[in-house]
Amino acid sequence: MARPLRRSSPITLILALVLFLGFIIFILSPSNPVPSIPKSKIASSSSTRTSPNSPPPVVHYYLNNLTTSSDPVGNRERVLVLTPVARFYDEYWQNLLKLSYPRDLIELGFIVPKTREGNTALAKLEDAVRRVQTGSKKHRFLGVTIIRQDFDTPVPQNEKERHALSAQKERREAMSRARNSLLYTTLGTETAWVLWLDADIIETPHTLIQDLASHDKAVIVPNCYQRYTDKGKEKTRPYDFNSWHDSETALAMARKMGSDEIILEGYHEMATYRSLMAYEMTEGGDPHLETELDGVGGTALLVKAEVHRDGAMFPPFPFYNLIETEGFAKMARRLGHQPYGLPNYLVYHYNE
Amino acid sequence: MARPLRRSSPITLILALVLFLGFIIFILSPSNPVPSIPKSKIASSSSTRTSPNSPPPVVHYYLNNLTTSSDPVGNRERVLVLTPVARFYDEYWQNLLKLSYPRDLIELGFIVPKTREGNTALAKLEDAVRRVQTGSKKHRFLGVTIIRQDFDTPVPQNEKERHALSAQKERREAMSRARNSLLYTTLGTETAWVLWLDADIIETPHTLIQDLASHDKAVIVPNCYQRYTDKGKEKTRPYDFNSWHDSETALAMARKMGSDEIILEGYHEMATYRSLMAYEMTEGGDPHLETELDGVGGTALLVKAEVHRDGAMFPPFPFYNLIETEGFAKMARRLGHQPYGLPNYLVYHYNE
Repeated sequence: MARPLRRSSPITLILALVLFLGFIIFILSPSNPVPSIPKSKIASSSSTRTSPNSPPPVVHYYLNNLTTSSDPVGNRERVLVLTPVARFYDEYWQNLLKLSYPRDLIELGFIVPKTREGNTALAKLEDAVRRVQTGSKKHRFLGVTIIRQDFDTPVPQNEKERHALSAQKERREAMSRARNSLLYTTLGTETAWVLWLDADIIETPHTLIQDLASHDKAVIVPNCYQRYTDKGKEKTRPYDFNSWHDSETALAMARKMGSDEIILEGYHEMATYRSLMAYEMTEGGDPHLETELDGVGGTALLVKAEVHRDGAMFPPFPFYNLIETEGFAKMARRLGHQPYGLPNYLVYHYNE
Repeated sequence: MARPLRRSSPITLILALVLFLGFIIFILSPSNPVPSIPKSKIASSSSTRTSPNSPPPVVHYYLNNLTTSSDPVGNRERVLVLTPVARFYDEYWQNLLKLSYPRDLIELGFIVPKTREGNTALAKLEDAVRRVQTGSKKHRFLGVTIIRQDFDTPVPQNEKERHALSAQKERREAMSRARNSLLYTTLGTETAWVLWLDADIIETPHTLIQDLASHDKAVIVPNCYQRYTDKGKEKTRPYDFNSWHDSETALAMARKMGSDEIILEGYHEMATYRSLMAYEMTEGGDPHLETELDGVGGTALLVKAEVHRDGAMFPPFPFYNLIETEGFAKMARRLGHQPYGLPNYLVYHYNE
């Protein structure tokens, strides 16, 4: 049995203006059309009154043809950007603000752990959200939801401890629960895409959403690198090792494992001989080159909403000896959705 | 690999004025308090204006202590009642209307397949919803969402064919996807409980929600029976065989199976020797008697929202050789949540 995480209290949720912002604005200013429901797609709308004293018609039916296509801007497809936030990096926020996808089609969702560090991150995040959402209407996001995690984060979050093999299982179980809570609390009827974007991703192409969506894949992941300085020279190195093609060695390891054990990638103690997308980058190579993947990382990850709606989540328990985003990839495949990676399309992780 | 269901088109969703009904009413009539956010729990609310031209304050932060307790009415806990609807039975609707749980704490969610039968059911359902939601304010549900299933239902839905062993896997995979889509599109930030209630459950105690919640279990299932007439006499018989305690025989069967095979309950061809809750009912026995379960049925099933938020869903693929609600029970257990059943607490299934 996976050890259940101790719930420290009933769920504590902070709702920050939330998905309803768009609706509130819409309702208070009737001149604003609701962008996601093109008039041509309204099939029927009822205005029955049952008695002279009843309020104005309140029940409407929209026949809404939601698409998830390679032209999401043209089709006015809503994107839910989800970020688990342990620390708030201004570079993350500035990069988010530079994304060129129309903000009136973007909903943001954050989940913040109940730690002292989480409190600090929350204050900064709220402040950043408030600045954008009370500013000029045309620069606002469609909605913002901030959720306070309802269970304790089990292990310290500094870089060294976080990556220790022994701490990984517990940490990634907790991260899975956080991702699932965030996802399944914010996924709405009109969400077309979910972009997972970790709080420490500080640099991406501004056309990230359009670029990834243009491949029209159920699950697609860019290559996550990190910038660093070596003897005064700016260099880059691979960072996320969770996007991989499976190996016979890893599959054989799994066959010998108990159902509660997990295989982790990127640890010398556990050589899997999987081919890692991290090492498949070619300098100057075609950024649209696709490769089929068996595991995916979640630092940046675009998923069609239907994949999550079908039930593909981040297993907080060993699933085929895989956990979190790697378990998600396996689950997506079980559901008939093949994940893809873009080895030459780079996003960059913060360097602590 | 589980055979993916063919998606016939991009997602088609029907939104029936939806969760926002409550909000719209609230916003248009400022005298109505939002019931779910007791004033004492509002931690902070900002009303920053950044410029004289900005609209009225639109960013609010609520610190909302959501509880999921044995006294849900007293704690004003929201219940999301979810029903996959293949046919609309008036008896189901009348029973739903008789539930004594406060309607301003109930949100309803339905998913309807894209079949001719689904069209008929949808028309009836919309009509029923419209009657309640345009009627007296105090009898309205907090919100209603109707989703049109975005994939085809694979097999015929008449009673005989539906129960054929050969058709079960495909049928229950489709049902799992429907449940997951419905759940993960409607689960909101303030949902405390999810009551799964099948469209063919036509009779329950009116205190169903309070009774089940009073046990304060993560997952709890009543015993599903069926009324019938035998030689002019009214009798009852067990109907749902998916709530069970595991057996060594079934576990041994699973060990010999491939990962794509499933064990089904209630078929002579596949004797599992599991103990079925269906047969544990004692006439006149204590309705609050609890029993730990390994599998659960979904005809009526109360789940704490946190269980679904953690990621426990209805696996549309064999999960430990289990599928749908039985796979859900296994997943809940993997997440540390023990399901319970009430052998003497009865709900009744339609008799075709």
